[in-house]
Order: sequence, then structure tokens, then C-alpha cells
Amino acid sequence: MIKVGIVGGTGYTGVELLRLLANHPQVKVEVITSRSEEGLRIDDMYPNLRGHYDLQFTVPDVETLAQCDAVFFATPHGVAMKMAPELVARGVRVIDLGADFRIKDLELWSKWYGMEHTSPELAAKAVYGLPEVNRDAIKNAEMIACPGCYPTATQLGFLPLVENGLIDHRRLIADVKSGVSGAGRGANVGSLLCESSESMKAYAVAGHRHLPEVKQGLSEAAGRPVGLTFVPHLTPMIRGIHATLYGILKDPVDGLQELFEQRYADEPFVDVMPAGSLPETRSVKGANICRISVFRPQNDDTVVVLSVIDNLVKGAAGQAIQNLNIMFGFDETEGLRHAGMMP
Amino acid sequence: MIKVGIVGGTGYTGVELLRLLANHPQVKVEVITSRSEEGLRIDDMYPNLRGHYDLQFTVPDVETLAQCDAVFFATPHGVAMKMAPELVARGVRVIDLGADFRIKDLELWSKWYGMEHTSPELAAKAVYGLPEVNRDAIKNAEMIACPGCYPTATQLGFLPLVENGLIDHRRLIADVKSGVSGAGRGANVGSLLCESSESMKAYAVAGHRHLPEVKQGLSEAAGRPVGLTFVPHLTPMIRGIHATLYGILKDPVDGLQELFEQRYADEPFVDVMPAGSLPETRSVKGANICRISVFRPQNDDTVVVLSVIDNLVKGAAGQAIQNLNIMFGFDETEGLRHAGMMP
Amino acid sequence: MIKVGIVGGTGYTGVELLRLLANHPQVKVEVITSRSEEGLRIDDMYPNLRGHYDLQFTVPDVETLAQCDAVFFATPHGVAMKMAPELVARGVRVIDLGADFRIKDLELWSKWYGMEHTSPELAAKAVYGLPEVNRDAIKNAEMIACPGCYPTATQLGFLPLVENGLIDHRRLIADVKSGVSGAGRGANVGSLLCESSESMKAYAVAGHRHLPEVKQGLSEAAGRPVGLTFVPHLTPMIRGIHATLYGILKDPVDGLQELFEQRYADEPFVDVMPAGSLPETRSVKGANICRISVFRPQNDDTVVVLSVIDNLVKGAAGQAIQNLNIMFGFDETEGLRHAGMMP
Amino acid sequence: MIKVGIVGGTGYTGVELLRLLANHPQVKVEVITSRSEEGLRIDDMYPNLRGHYDLQFTVPDVETLAQCDAVFFATPHGVAMKMAPELVARGVRVIDLGADFRIKDLELWSKWYGMEHTSPELAAKAVYGLPEVNRDAIKNAEMIACPGCYPTATQLGFLPLVENGLIDHRRLIADVKSGVSGAGRGANVGSLLCESSESMKAYAVAGHRHLPEVKQGLSEAAGRPVGLTFVPHLTPMIRGIHATLYGILKDPVDGLQELFEQRYADEPFVDVMPAGSLPETRSVKGANICRISVFRPQNDDTVVVLSVIDNLVKGAAGQAIQNLNIMFGFDETEGLRHAGMMP
Repeated sequence: MIKVGIVGGTGYTGVELLRLLANHPQVKVEVITSRSEEGLRIDDMYPNLRGHYDLQFTVPDVETLAQCDAVFFATPHGVAMKMAPELVARGVRVIDLGADFRIKDLELWSKWYGMEHTSPELAAKAVYGLPEVNRDAIKNAEMIACPGCYPTATQLGFLPLVENGLIDHRRLIADVKSGVSGAGRGANVGSLLCESSESMKAYAVAGHRHLPEVKQGLSEAAGRPVGLTFVPHLTPMIRGIHATLYGILKDPVDGLQELFEQRYADEPFVDVMPAGSLPETRSVKGANICRISVFRPQNDDTVVVLSVIDNLVKGAAGQAIQNLNIMFGFDETEGLRHAGMMP
Repeated sequence: MIKVGIVGGTGYTGVELLRLLANHPQVKVEVITSRSEEGLRIDDMYPNLRGHYDLQFTVPDVETLAQCDAVFFATPHGVAMKMAPELVARGVRVIDLGADFRIKDLELWSKWYGMEHTSPELAAKAVYGLPEVNRDAIKNAEMIACPGCYPTATQLGFLPLVENGLIDHRRLIADVKSGVSGAGRGANVGSLLCESSESMKAYAVAGHRHLPEVKQGLSEAAGRPVGLTFVPHLTPMIRGIHATLYGILKDPVDGLQELFEQRYADEPFVDVMPAGSLPETRSVKGANICRISVFRPQNDDTVVVLSVIDNLVKGAAGQAIQNLNIMFGFDETEGLRHAGMMP
Repeated sequence: MIKVGIVGGTGYTGVELLRLLANHPQVKVEVITSRSEEGLRIDDMYPNLRGHYDLQFTVPDVETLAQCDAVFFATPHGVAMKMAPELVARGVRVIDLGADFRIKDLELWSKWYGMEHTSPELAAKAVYGLPEVNRDAIKNAEMIACPGCYPTATQLGFLPLVENGLIDHRRLIADVKSGVSGAGRGANVGSLLCESSESMKAYAVAGHRHLPEVKQGLSEAAGRPVGLTFVPHLTPMIRGIHATLYGILKDPVDGLQELFEQRYADEPFVDVMPAGSLPETRSVKGANICRISVFRPQNDDTVVVLSVIDNLVKGAAGQAIQNLNIMFGFDETEGLRHAGMMP
Repeated sequence: MIKVGIVGGTGYTGVELLRLLANHPQVKVEVITSRSEEGLRIDDMYPNLRGHYDLQFTVPDVETLAQCDAVFFATPHGVAMKMAPELVARGVRVIDLGADFRIKDLELWSKWYGMEHTSPELAAKAVYGLPEVNRDAIKNAEMIACPGCYPTATQLGFLPLVENGLIDHRRLIADVKSGVSGAGRGANVGSLLCESSESMKAYAVAGHRHLPEVKQGLSEAAGRPVGLTFVPHLTPMIRGIHATLYGILKDPVDGLQELFEQRYADEPFVDVMPAGSLPETRSVKGANICRISVFRPQNDDTVVVLSVIDNLVKGAAGQAIQNLNIMFGFDETEGLRHAGMMP
């Protein structure tokens, strides 16, 4: 039984960590912090947790957090990079669900996130927590940068093609659709039910912060810089990401289905669906799983990959726990074995 | 480890049984039947179950079902009463999520369900599976009639008042609101997204089949026949029931909060919220729990009880498993301990 | 062609006024104000209006507004009572969609709205703008207090019963359900899609500001103070109010259907549906109409009235324009004759 | 005042025709047909129309329809091609909202629609009713084939690029998202609220019937066959299409914004939004308008066009009325001048 802390527990990834960890037999949440909600019981804010925890939000404090074996940061960018170095120095293993440690090129990071990076040493050591790529490195990592939600769905969908050099690496297109929970629990007009339900819209077409992260991951897999057009859309639902990915096959080959099945044959949380299947985001609602289908419409040279996840689970809290399991030698699926909720 | 079968597994209560039982350590689903979908893998219909079961639908057959320790019926009314008697005779314990065995007065049953009852002997022995009322009888029951969804929320909300004779038993009002999954997976125009989203409507105002069931339960608790006005509403969401209950206090007493807290102090699946709380159906989404609040607006003589459940869990599949746990001496919360999903 | 101004045009009632007035042949919107959005084009905020207006928000200014024939206030309470007196003094006819002039008892008003009333003289002269009750007074009114959304649906549903003394006036129950647009365009966490979709909850059970307004109207109609239990619910949809109203018949009479039909026979915007019909809020989406059905379940002594409106139209902007039409001698239905939008 | 008939009035395009025509001063709906609903009042099926029509569904009959000046077919494919020839022969001008006359190559039509075409002569004369391309031909047309919903949004978005030869015509990608009303009012499990809300999925990835229609239109505009990958998605909302279109610029030019603005400068129902704007489908809800934005992300050689319509209006009934207006010499905007509904 390890002790964990959660910094920034009031947002949707925070409560999702709590929901999932409530059933994890080897983890006990000892601390959960929030500056703004100090003293509030977590189940007053999230009544779904009534009966599962006897905890209240406290002000984040390194002394207290340092008593934990692991600390999750479920915070906006800029927070983890300030607190993580000292925790790591004191032997705490840190898993950041935010963006601070995802991009290796810190100049690029600064450009997209609009601030200086304050812990370049730790950034250099941080492991990008996509187990399907970095499982071995995760095992011994001191600092994990959990992938963003769009990057998880997009990379898992493109990886088999890019790793094998099958598509024109300069012309990747990711048309990605996210539920509104991706925008967080902040009180923004654009996330109101009256503004975001019964409507569909693209946003950040000129450039989204997940673009450099995806490019970094796919470029590494390709062995050279990829070109990517990345268009996110706000979809009128709470949870779910649907990535529709387009690539141009260098050689219009058969066997894509097998390629995908083999790539992920041993992955507990990637499900390559039978040929012709159409993954729905609702099939992964609440579950730590990425479902993928691959198509070659009209047997032409364009390949279309459909990749769905729950942005709060495989795209955030679930993946963070998957990393934790790997880091501490638990069964990788511990706490994450439940099925998605349909309907 | 007991063996269970599910008759009628293609509907929403069927898939919800499968979702919940996937994590039940003492239960193995051996058989799942569907006449119309014979041979189809269950995870082809419900891809959320991929990786959790290796089962396909079979035609219902007493021989096969009789090998099980327990059989759930997740069927429309009229099915269980035909098959259950032989199963019970062969020692199988039967839990009917449908309506066949809920109403003791079979003439009344026939009036509301429009057919003769074909197994009056078993109906006489059947136990109404509301554990908060009938726990002891459930333990040894051969045949369980699981309460309907509205009746669960309505009875749990009214019980403390009615059992103690605090309200005018002739003038109960239940204004109940249900998500669309209550209408099932049948392809009805009224359940289409385009017909039922972005709208609110009452239905069956002249008389709903759950009215006699609620009256039966509350009359038993009151020790005399109650008068009830029951108005169901179709609410634009998938899951959830919100019962808003009105009663006239004979004596405008204080202490209703304590009364409710004491009534349910030992109940694992009824959560009386702190005074002044407003239960949301989303706080119980996917979880086997009923959350209740009680109010006396303007300190007047009308009491208002708010009672919420997930119609597919505490209102159907979860409650059925709760009954199973009681019947087989398992921990009553086995397989049902996870938190609801917010957001 | 009259000139009108709108104070507080950024909220949902403001944009709805603009949408409806765009097709009113006798009205030209000259001024629209917003302190926070000064200089912004209205169609930058509300692109549905692109091509319909060439207007930008200005800071509210009495001089400019005084050039109008009529001014609508689509503001939070407390604003209209400060600006309206001078406008009225200068001959402008004012229609307040807010709450400042709805309640005649200003002490009661202060209690519920938490501030002193600053224009008691104008409040005394203000006409409550429910045309179905006050049409004659509206014609010559200088100051109109438009009814709230819940009060419109609730009063229109109860009026035929209360005016004729048919129900126990001490025991009215209004179980009312509103779409989220009733909460306005403010950036509140509770109105986020992720918080308010896929859920149902009651709120303000202890007391809602529309309670005294409804009681005032119904007490006037009854000729004596009525007793009312009023429970509002937040419903996961954008627009619509569904009021489910309960009364106890003194004498379980027949003929309620005819009573309602006769009461509203000449009303252009109240539609008594055929006996047995179930009004859906979507049937009034975008339209200035209240649809009503009346039931006596099981021929008992409880009467159930179902009353639906679009909270932004008959519950706000449409009713305001209906008042304007009456005040200026236009056809009462001008600009309001379009059908609701289904699906 | 012309007399019109509607064949197949029970579906969503049928009721939308009725809603829009209720406010058209030069059109009177004389006949509306439905085999299955003969004798039913249209406002019993669609109560939003109560007070607007005194009509009931009749069995389709050429004699009666031949009395009309124009007849709309709002029917599944295969119906119009059987009845239209005789109507046209008798001088009735026919507007088909279905698919029978959209594709000029009847062999191709048969392949995609799975039946023989029974009126090749009329098909040869039929005019494709996209006013932005074919306005002059529409004026004198006897038979109009209204474009499909996806094809309208997709063609209007690609046209300025394709007509001017700016993009690689072999590599067009249309990632299109539609609300559920696009699937019609048929009682299909996949269109249930419980199946299609809170989820996103692609469908018909291997080939959708709108693909050949879009290719035909764009190939004509390009002057040579285009290559198109077309992936439709079912989006959890009632109305709206969002087309996200990708093309590869031959020459990464500036001036795309001006190009689009000029192309549609005189079009009453195409709105090129200011540079950088993000069109939302809700901004066109209920309105006959296509809103378009054009982007060149990271100033690279990929152009992204966003194009939104209401599938039932500019994608069906509104466009049909726009055609009618052109055919009969009415103001092209008659009956179509209202703004979209936000929120």
C-alpha cells in the first residue's frame, strides 16, 4: 500500500483520479490540495465520492506532500514545474498530468505556453508517460509527463504507420473531436451548456498546444520531423475524444489491419477493433482504453485511422495510474480493469 | 464462485448486469440469451465489454439455464412468469428485473399489464427485492421480484414518513423524472435523440404501471391504503431518476433530517445527504446508490423529499446484484462498491 | 416604425429580443447597451445576427435612450429601477424583463432581492405584463414589469382553476423544470455543460424568487392569499419550461377541459391542447406560445395541469414584444407569428 | 400566391418545409401526403404547427398533386423518380429533396442506391439545385434535384479553391460531422438518444452516398475529376453540419480570405466570416445560411476550410424553398430571412 498525494484536486482530472483510485487496492490517497477550496470536504464538491473518502482539501505544502510515495499534479501548466523538483529531490515520484514536462525542447515549450520553464534539469530527466512507447523508461522514472488527451489518441492511431514508414511523413492530418470536459471545470462562457451543447465547432485552428507535443512524439517514431495539420473540435458531449487521422500511403499496401493488431497485441489498453468496425467514444466512457480502427476507403492511397479514448481516463487520470502501476511494479491494469459504461 | 445466467441480455438492464458482474469476484456469467441475436458475440453488440467476456447470445433454453445457480431475467413482462417456475422447481434461484412478480394482487397485475398471470403459485412466493424493506426475506428467497426504477426511488423517499405515519396518507404526490434509458433499447420514435433531447414532457399522466407497485409498497409500510398521484416525465438525459415527493405533514414537526438519517443509518446503498443538500442524478451515475434529501419549505406543513438513483443500477441491475449478494451470503456490496461518475 | 433601445443586450434575453425584432416590421432597434462590451459589434458576439443588424454595444446613456419610443431592460435586478424613472419621465415607455417592478409589496421585494427599492413611485404605477390577465392596463402603461419565466407558465396553468375557486387555494404545488438558459449567460460552474448536462436536480427548494411573484398573481386571481409549494429543477436542455401543477379539487367536477378552452379561447398565445395531449417543451422552442393540458388522474380529486413555454420567448423576450405590440396598438402577434422548431 | 404540395410530409425535411412555408407570403400548402399517416392532422404529429395549418395527411395521388403549381418530394430515394415524370408532364414544377435526380451518371447512381433508375429522361433534364452554382438554370427548371446536406456544406466550402485550381484536385479531404436529424425520423436503434448522445463516431468510412454527389459537383467546378476522401461522423446534437475541409495548396498563396469573400459577395445565403472566425453550427440553427471560414495553419501549404449549415434548412428544406423562390420569380430570400437561434 503506497501513499499518494494529488495537487490540484478540484478539476476534472483530479476527481477522476479520486474515482479510479477509490478502487485501487494498493494505493491510499493521503493528501489532496486546493488553494481555493481549503478545508472543503472533497465529497461536498464531488458527492459521487460520498462514502469513499474522508478527506478535505488542504493548501499545497511540500512538507506534507514529501511524506507520499508518489504525487500526482492535476494542475494547469506552470504549477508542477515549480513544486516537482523539490519533491523529486526528496525521493517522491511525481506524475504530472499537466503540460510542464511534455515537450523536450524548452524553447518550443515557452513559445506555446507563454512562460519561461523554471526546471530545465528535471525536464531533461522527465519520461513521457505513454506506456505503449516508453514502458521501460517509465519503470524507473522519477518524473513522468503524462501525455495530453489529444496526443494520446493521435499518437496511438498514427504510431504503427509512422514507425514503419508507411505514410508520407510530411502530410499527416489529425481532425480531432473532444468532449467539453477537455476544457476543464473553469467557469468559461464557452463551456456553458447553452453555448456548447447542440453545436459543433473547430477551435485553435491556427495552432493548438497539443500540436508540438504530437509532432515531437511522431517525429521520434518516424526518425525525422513530421508535418502535421491538427484541427481540434469542441463536441457537444461531456467525455470522449475521437481522432480521425489521415495519411497518404507511400505504397497502397494491404495488411494494415494485421499491422495494427500486431503492434498492439500485448498492450492491455489498446484495442484494435475487427476490420470494418467503427469505434464510438461511448464504448470507452469511464474506461482506460483506446479503441482503434483502420480503413483504406475505396482501396485508394489514403489511410484513415479512427482512434477513441475517454479524455479523462486514457487521456489523463487512467493513464496516470497506469504509469503509477508500472513505476511501482503493480499489475499494470490494477484499478483500471472495469468496462466502459454503455449506454 | 457461482454460475449465473441472464435471460434477455440485449437490453440496457442486460448489458448493465454484464458491466457490473465483470468485476464481481464470486460470479461467473455462463449463459446469456437472446432469441433475436442468437450467435452474436455480446461484445459485438456492446463493444465496451470487449476483453471482459468471451460469450455469445444463445436461444433461451431451460436445460442450459438450469445448470446455473442463479438466473436473472432482464426481459419484458410476460417472459419470466413462463420460464421461472421450472427453473425454481429445479433449484435455480431466480431474480426477475421485469414486472411479472412485483404486484401481489394478480387481478390488479392483469389489469395494468394486459394479460393473464400464468404462475400464480410462484407469484405468491416471490419476494419483493427491496433490501431496505425485505432483507431477511430475500436471504432465503427462491424468486425475487426486483422493484421498478421509479418505485425504488419513490418508496425509499417516502418510507421514513409513511412508516411513521407522519404525513396524510391519502395525498401523496410523486413528480418523477427519468432519463430516456428507462424506455429501453427498443427502436421507438419517441426515444430518438431528435425527439427526446432538448425537450421535457410528462407522460402516462392518466396512469403508469409503476403506480400500483408504489401504492402496494407504501400501503404496506403505512398499514393502510395510500392515495398517490404519480406523474412521470421523460428527461433529456441517458440515465437517472429524480423523484420529487410531496406530502402533507399531519403535525409540522422538526427532526425530519434525523428521522431519515436513522432510518437508513445501516443501509450501504442509501445516502441521506446533509441538511440543505440538493442531490443530482449525475452523482449516482453508474453507482448502486440512492441519495436523498428532505425539506420543509418555508417551515410550512408540506414536506418535500428529493430522491435520486441511476435507473439502470439501483433501479435495476445493481439492485438485482445486491439481491443476489444477499441470497448467496456474499458481502452485500460485492461488485457494487465503485463510485458514481462525475462529470 | 418606432425606435427602441435595449439596455443590457449581451444576455440571452437580449439576444432573443434582437432575434425576434429582426423580423418585426414596425420596430427598429436603435440602441443596444452593454458596459462590458462597449464597441463590440453585436454580431461578433452573436453571429446568428450577422446580416440582420449593423449595431454595436454602447455604454448605457439616458440621453441616447430617451430618443427611443420604447426601451427594454434585459438586465439583472437593480438596474432598471435606477434608470427607468427618468426615461418614463421623458415619455419613453419602458418594458423591464427583469424583476424590479414585478412585486407590488416592496418590502417583500426587498426581502427576496436583498436590496432597497429605489423607485417606489414608478413601482406603484408599473403594470404586470401578463396580457392574459392585464391586457387593458398594458395598453396605456408607461412601465411594464414582464413576468418571470416560471411565473408565466405557472400562472397560466393555474389561472382557470384559481379564478373560479375550484381548488383548495391553500395547497397549490408547482413542480417546475427549466432549461439551463434560465440561469443566464453568466460564467457559473453550475451552468457548464459538464455540470448540468446528463443530470437532473432540484434547486432553491427552500425558497425561489419567483415564489412571491406567483403567489401575488394567483392570490389576486383567487381573491385571497394562496398557499404554494414551488420546487424548481434544472433540466439538461437549453430552452424550455415544463410546469407540472397540482391542485386539490373542492368538488371533483368534470368539464375542466372546457373550462380551460373557454378561458383561453381568444388568447393568441395560449394553446389549450386536446384532452389527453402531453405538451412537450420542444413544441414551443423559439415560439411565443404557452401550451397547456389538464388531467384528473384516475378521476380522483387531484387536478394536474401541464404547462410549457420557451423561457426565453413567452417567458421573456417574446412576451415583452407582445406587451410592446399591445402598448403601441400594433397587431398583438406582430413579429411573433412563427412556429416553434421541431425537431 | 402559388399552390404547393408536399409528398412525404412526416419526416424531418417535411415538417421543416411546413415550418418555413408557414411564413411565406406567396405560398400556400394545399396537399401533404403520407401513406402511413393518412387522415392524421399534421399538427397532431407536429404540435409546433398548431394554429398554423388546417391540414391532414392524404395518400399521395397524382390527380390531386397535379393541381399544384409546385410539388416538393421529401421522400426516401426511389419515390420521386416514379411520380415526378407525370407531374412534370402536366406542368407541375417539381423539387426533389431526395437523391433520385442528384447524380447525372445513372449507372453510378444505381451502384450507390441499389436500384435501377426509372426515369432517365427526366434525370437528364433535372437541374442540380445549388443556387450558388446553377442559379440561371434553376430559373426555368422543370425538375430540381436539391443537393444533399453534406454536399451543400462541402461544395460551398471547396468551390472557391477548386474553381480557381488552387489546390491539388487529387487529394481533397472532407471530414464532415452531422447532427442526428440527418439520419431522419426512422425508428433506428442507432438514432436513439441512449445510443447517439454523449458519443462521437465515424460511419460509412468505406463509402457514403454523398461521396459521388460531391465528387460530381467538384469535378465539374474543377474541370476534371477530383479525388476525395469523405468521412462522415455522427455528432450528438439534433441539427447542424460542420464540414472541415483539407486541401493542399499548389502555391501557398495569400489572399484566400479575399477570394472567398469575392466568390460569395452577392450570395444572400453564404456568409464568409471575418478572418480568424470559427463558425459554430448553432449560429445557423433554423436559418438558411452557410457560414464559412478559411485558414492556412502555420502558413503552411495546407488550407483548412470550415463550413457550417443547418442540415434541415440550407441542407434541405430551406434550400428547396430558395429554389422555389428562384423558379417562380419571388425574392430569393422570401420566407428565409429569419436569423438562426442562439442559444
